[in-house]
Amino acid sequence: MIHYQSKQLMPTLRETPAEAEALSHRLLLRGGMIRQLASGVYTYMPLGRRVLRKLENIIREELDAAGAQEVTMPVMQPADLWRQSGRYDDYGPELMRVKDRNNREFALGPTHEEVVTALIHGDVDSYKQLPLTLYQIGTKFRDEKRPRFGLLRGREFVMMDAYSFSEDMEGLDVSYEAMFQAYRAIFSRAGLNYLAVEADGGAIGDAGGTHEFMALADIGEDTVVTCSCCEYGANLEKASGRTPGKSGDGANNAREINGIADSRQRLHTPDASTIPELCGLLGIEPQEIIKTLIYEADGKPIAVLVRGDHEVNETKLQQAVGAVMVELAGADVTVAATSSAKGFAGPIGLNIPVYADEAVMAMENALVGAREKDWHLGGVRPGVDFQPLSVGDFRNVKEGEACPTCSRGKLVFRRGIEVGHVFKLGIKYSVPLNASFQDRGGRQSHYVMGCYGIGVSRLMAALVEQHGSETGIVWPREVAPYNVHLVVIAIADAEQRQLAEKLAKALSSANLDVLVDERNERPGVKLKDADLFGIPDRLIVGRSAAQGIIEWKVNGESREILWEKAVEEITLSNDKRK
Amino acid sequence: MIHYQSKQLMPTLRETPAEAEALSHRLLLRGGMIRQLASGVYTYMPLGRRVLRKLENIIREELDAAGAQEVTMPVMQPADLWRQSGRYDDYGPELMRVKDRNNREFALGPTHEEVVTALIHGDVDSYKQLPLTLYQIGTKFRDEKRPRFGLLRGREFVMMDAYSFSEDMEGLDVSYEAMFQAYRAIFSRAGLNYLAVEADGGAIGDAGGTHEFMALADIGEDTVVTCSCCEYGANLEKASGRTPGKSGDGANNAREINGIADSRQRLHTPDASTIPELCGLLGIEPQEIIKTLIYEADGKPIAVLVRGDHEVNETKLQQAVGAVMVELAGADVTVAATSSAKGFAGPIGLNIPVYADEAVMAMENALVGAREKDWHLGGVRPGVDFQPLSVGDFRNVKEGEACPTCSRGKLVFRRGIEVGHVFKLGIKYSVPLNASFQDRGGRQSHYVMGCYGIGVSRLMAALVEQHGSETGIVWPREVAPYNVHLVVIAIADAEQRQLAEKLAKALSSANLDVLVDERNERPGVKLKDADLFGIPDRLIVGRSAAQGIIEWKVNGESREILWEKAVEEITLSNDKRK
Repeated sequence: MIHYQSKQLMPTLRETPAEAEALSHRLLLRGGMIRQLASGVYTYMPLGRRVLRKLENIIREELDAAGAQEVTMPVMQPADLWRQSGRYDDYGPELMRVKDRNNREFALGPTHEEVVTALIHGDVDSYKQLPLTLYQIGTKFRDEKRPRFGLLRGREFVMMDAYSFSEDMEGLDVSYEAMFQAYRAIFSRAGLNYLAVEADGGAIGDAGGTHEFMALADIGEDTVVTCSCCEYGANLEKASGRTPGKSGDGANNAREINGIADSRQRLHTPDASTIPELCGLLGIEPQEIIKTLIYEADGKPIAVLVRGDHEVNETKLQQAVGAVMVELAGADVTVAATSSAKGFAGPIGLNIPVYADEAVMAMENALVGAREKDWHLGGVRPGVDFQPLSVGDFRNVKEGEACPTCSRGKLVFRRGIEVGHVFKLGIKYSVPLNASFQDRGGRQSHYVMGCYGIGVSRLMAALVEQHGSETGIVWPREVAPYNVHLVVIAIADAEQRQLAEKLAKALSSANLDVLVDERNERPGVKLKDADLFGIPDRLIVGRSAAQGIIEWKVNGESREILWEKAVEEITLSNDKRK
Repeated sequence: MIHYQSKQLMPTLRETPAEAEALSHRLLLRGGMIRQLASGVYTYMPLGRRVLRKLENIIREELDAAGAQEVTMPVMQPADLWRQSGRYDDYGPELMRVKDRNNREFALGPTHEEVVTALIHGDVDSYKQLPLTLYQIGTKFRDEKRPRFGLLRGREFVMMDAYSFSEDMEGLDVSYEAMFQAYRAIFSRAGLNYLAVEADGGAIGDAGGTHEFMALADIGEDTVVTCSCCEYGANLEKASGRTPGKSGDGANNAREINGIADSRQRLHTPDASTIPELCGLLGIEPQEIIKTLIYEADGKPIAVLVRGDHEVNETKLQQAVGAVMVELAGADVTVAATSSAKGFAGPIGLNIPVYADEAVMAMENALVGAREKDWHLGGVRPGVDFQPLSVGDFRNVKEGEACPTCSRGKLVFRRGIEVGHVFKLGIKYSVPLNASFQDRGGRQSHYVMGCYGIGVSRLMAALVEQHGSETGIVWPREVAPYNVHLVVIAIADAEQRQLAEKLAKALSSANLDVLVDERNERPGVKLKDADLFGIPDRLIVGRSAAQGIIEWKVNGESREILWEKAVEEITLSNDKRK
């Protein structure tokens, strides 16, 4: 199909919008592909809508091929259904809520676990009807506290969400794997540079397996941990390092701290309440110190011990504690729980539950707070001088640590945008919603579920982060808004006009979508707009039109070519892709 | 593509759901195409979703061909924008409202006039960028007081809405006509039996022209007025009859009523306060009586006079009065406004504005209430004995009346479901939103707008009303969920199984979507399910499989045919349609 640019709504901006921090946000605004209506709420303009539609179609094709079935579930979800799963309260202010004229409460769906579970419960009562995977593509709502980066973190966004129902965990594994492979196909076709990494189920999942699909980009808010040698990949919440052995890590070797003997000893540390202050005062390294941090787990204080050079991983901690909510305690709670001044908390003699990271237990001679203002204790032996309630992996890995799966690699950190997620839910929803079927043995059994999401509008922005620069975008061919951009330099020139018409017709009859810039504008304006639109194959009809010669620009590289030859090559390469 | 039925979520219901009054509601539920989540809120199941997708694609293709451009505007619309147009208050309880975490108010879009006007205002500043028509297909919200008939009147539904922007009224006429023709193409391709009728702009439009596209169906809540001879079509709100002349209509001839002379006379009419009671008591016809009805127009009482056999048309009345809201007054207001007992109101001596229908003014000798309990006045001459403030067409036409446009026809009433609407909005929104562009003369001018809607999910239900019966549906080919339904009578029979495989592959490689019923069920169950699914071409593989002979059932008609021949014919007829 041929579209003439003068008739399209494709308003470009010459100025860089001041509010747009992210490259994709700037480019999508400047290219006239989106417009903001309210904070985190955007209109998709014709060009943006075309890209989004291509992404939706890729997703649809790959999910259909994987045996998933498309449905559309309502945006309005009865609050009572959400109360059954417990999420109506748990979800917090991110859940948008609305009352109808009869004062009945509804949630505006951010996801559809409850609705789909109730649906399947109503219509599927035998193992013979399983497995099933349903998916939908539609508008979702999440009232983000800080919407930012344009389409990367919006409050109203386009999402694909899918749900699988299996007889048992083995069945779930099969459905999960099929979706995992479909995701790979989708992101590859879309031209995304991504990693599939192990992730933590967090609040949503309970059956263990979960992966995130991360678009690699500096603007990404997630840290992706990869190995310099092997295929290992995890998000920071999930990534584990190698557990340091008693003498494995150098820093933990028993040795005298600044001449202090290897036994407990009170040290006067006036005003030194932070790791850097202690290191400066005592001339020691952070890895010789144990940090004692007070958290509130569902409102109750607990102590968490990590090495001075480590950070607590709250996701791991939360799972170990088994709490819904884990957060760093305020000063009041800390002082009350440790009976000591802030900055001098320590594990010895504490009467609240103590969670110690494995690396702490590998230390042989450590400095801890003395639970007394201006005093620390040296020569402390974990496991001897104090006994934690629980020992585990409660810390973030650090860049450069040894890879947990291969012997040679070191961990490398990269920034990622989460564009997809696959979860093993298990029976998390089917139990509270009492959703069961008759299994092979004739007994009632709960559905074993998986859930799967792709942020479609976010994926569009992630592609721009990867394929954009400050001058414009070059869309991957499968998702480009048009196949060919035909720019006529001087529309008043009859030769140019006629050649452009011939070219457009030839491409269109080869089933390609052609955008023709036939505006009466200066060449500079046209080419700058073309850069912003990012259509990968650009044909420029200019001075050599009389000789049938045009300029073909791909990815910034130009060459002169006979017009018939260009049509032939472009048609061929598009046929191949199909 | 081939889909195997045993793997699909297509749950049929044998029982007729008690709550479903409308045929389409029953069939869509029984065929497993929709499921209710809440009152007026439905999930589209895989089969229903496929039909909906076909409808969406037809709409998209025809609107693209008409030069409209697809966008997606947000569901969440800032309340302030709606306040600018005045609709935030006017829309009433049908508008769903939601507050975000910062207590900012939003409307959940039932339509997008405000959003699109603001959008165009921001990006289009010259006549050179006009005309433009934007459309979108998406979920809309309207909190209906009485959701009913399944998808025919829902609270969350799928709609196509479009908006055109022109320089002037002539430009609007061109855009309107293009959309009108696109609508004709859409509804014809969808296989709908419809009429395009003149309609009243009602609250939404102010530029005069508006048409409704009515699917003809007995369940329809609208009355469509057509002519027995000519092409005339209007909805009841809009339809006008021929104005009766003083001696044109027979009933109005001057004559004595029951021996009462042709001059005003008090008649004792004890307990006769209704038209039938008066007719019974006095032996006269309804068309000899003037009904005096008291309405409140934006809270102020007015009197409306229509002939005893006529009904007030509130839409016409509202436009004549120029009020936002016109409703029949309660007993208290009526008694106070007429200083008389209920049922005995009359026009003589009234000191509130009187609106008289043209047919009343054509009466020469009428009976009216005497504004005194148990008394009427006979021999009243409109225009002599009382003088209305305004005379006009304030009534509904009646079936059998003379057609207003041709000399031969009589008006025929039919029931219709409104599936589409095209409006000339004019500057109704561009003025309050202060949305203007620089016109050819260099002056700022307001956009002249049109708006256009198709109820996509309602269209799906309307098609079922027209193509359904209590045993099932036969979908029009362009919208059928699959092209071919291949039913294997005995899946345990190897010959049948193998023939079915060959057939499915041959059809699929001709680019047709095939649903194969390979379930291990009794033939009766399979064929009843097939009736409910309504796939128009059904191929039944049974006993003659060994001879390569199958049964081809179209629209209830069966014939035996060699399988290769069936593939050939079906492929050919589908190619033709493309």
